[in-house]
Amino acid sequence: MEVTLNLENTSSKDISIMVDAFRASTSITLALGKFNEVIPTFTPEKAKKLAKEKNGILAGERMGKALEGFDMGNSPVEINELNTKLKTLILTTSNGTRILENMKSTVLIGCFINAKAVAKKSLILAKENNYNHIDVVMAGWKGNFAIEDFLASGEILYWIQKELCENHTIGEDFDISEYAQSAILASRDYKKLKEVIYNTKSSKRLKKLGYEKDIELSLKKNINNNVAIYNEGVLKLFK
Amino acid sequence: MEVTLNLENTSSKDISIMVDAFRASTSITLALGKFNEVIPTFTPEKAKKLAKEKNGILAGERMGKALEGFDMGNSPVEINELNTKLKTLILTTSNGTRILENMKSTVLIGCFINAKAVAKKSLILAKENNYNHIDVVMAGWKGNFAIEDFLASGEILYWIQKELCENHTIGEDFDISEYAQSAILASRDYKKLKEVIYNTKSSKRLKKLGYEKDIELSLKKNINNNVAIYNEGVLKLFK
Repeated sequence: MEVTLNLENTSSKDISIMVDAFRASTSITLALGKFNEVIPTFTPEKAKKLAKEKNGILAGERMGKALEGFDMGNSPVEINELNTKLKTLILTTSNGTRILENMKSTVLIGCFINAKAVAKKSLILAKENNYNHIDVVMAGWKGNFAIEDFLASGEILYWIQKELCENHTIGEDFDISEYAQSAILASRDYKKLKEVIYNTKSSKRLKKLGYEKDIELSLKKNINNNVAIYNEGVLKLFK
Repeated sequence: MEVTLNLENTSSKDISIMVDAFRASTSITLALGKFNEVIPTFTPEKAKKLAKEKNGILAGERMGKALEGFDMGNSPVEINELNTKLKTLILTTSNGTRILENMKSTVLIGCFINAKAVAKKSLILAKENNYNHIDVVMAGWKGNFAIEDFLASGEILYWIQKELCENHTIGEDFDISEYAQSAILASRDYKKLKEVIYNTKSSKRLKKLGYEKDIELSLKKNINNNVAIYNEGVLKLFK
């Protein structure tokens, strides 16, 4: 079993775990507790068209801000508080949804809130399909490194490593890349991790836009067992 | 003041701190306690020629191994134990010396053993010259990320950050990149850091070649105040 970490593009043909910790991954993970499906969409125009066709809720942002004419922004707090009988969420975001398009592997969605769950499910999926490469892919910000994605990846990788060490039937021989190991090391001190993330430019931008509660929620570790799997353009709960 | 972290190529025109923790940076730092100068050389042939011209000691490696016809390998332990009256060391290594060639900024040499010293001196140099960008540059391994360089960089960046926080006259406003901050976070738990580095492929290769003591020495934190500065092809003690 090979376990790696990359930015924006995956190096795996087997399994990729997409991590956009602020806020797409968290929104998707929570949305699948309410909706049957989340359809990530790459332009606001296509999102609007699809929402009509599917009779769905329309959510999305550009530069952190909610889009005009949309039901809501890309806010995990708003999605969590939503009361609706509709079954489809259409979501368009700056980073997270854009990079899904290019992934040729099976894609799961990971973040702080489901780190342990996505780690376990990625290994189950690997075992069932005889896959031997799990790549954790940071969405980043416009092609650049984003520390919240690095640290959320570190939390996911920590649980993958733990599972591989304790459960030898999964991956007799396993290799965790040095970059992945560095993310695990960086993510161990939760108090320092939160301090650092609260002071980034992304956090400051979200606070300015009034989304401070989204930061708090996105940083909670392992409070949710939902894992989204991406298939033919649609995200569903992986069971 | 801007503080960044990069792999192999520097993004600064002001000051770069080259970090090749195993073993070039450590060898150079120790060598300047014995020699007046260290001349990094990019081919073994040129190293041999220069050693004759300068009446110097000839040290170097390829793939970790000492080179035939050389006085010694690139071993900080051997350099530290050396007894000689000669004043020049000629050094050729796989990674560290190669990347110096392309740097257009002022270059200092950093590693675990002089982390605090190189951090302080980089800020003194910045203040004296009105420079406002310090870039820590990991040598890596053949263009790839190497965790020992990331973690040694984290230790150096920790001291730069501490100094900037405590001494406001240096850099009124400062920005430490998110990648640099992730290296600081990853380097804080020294016990875990050593455990991880001891189990990398680089460590295993060095152990196999009989250089285990070089690993121990290269991982000692802040035991040396030597800081090498690179100027017109020659490394000298920065005073």
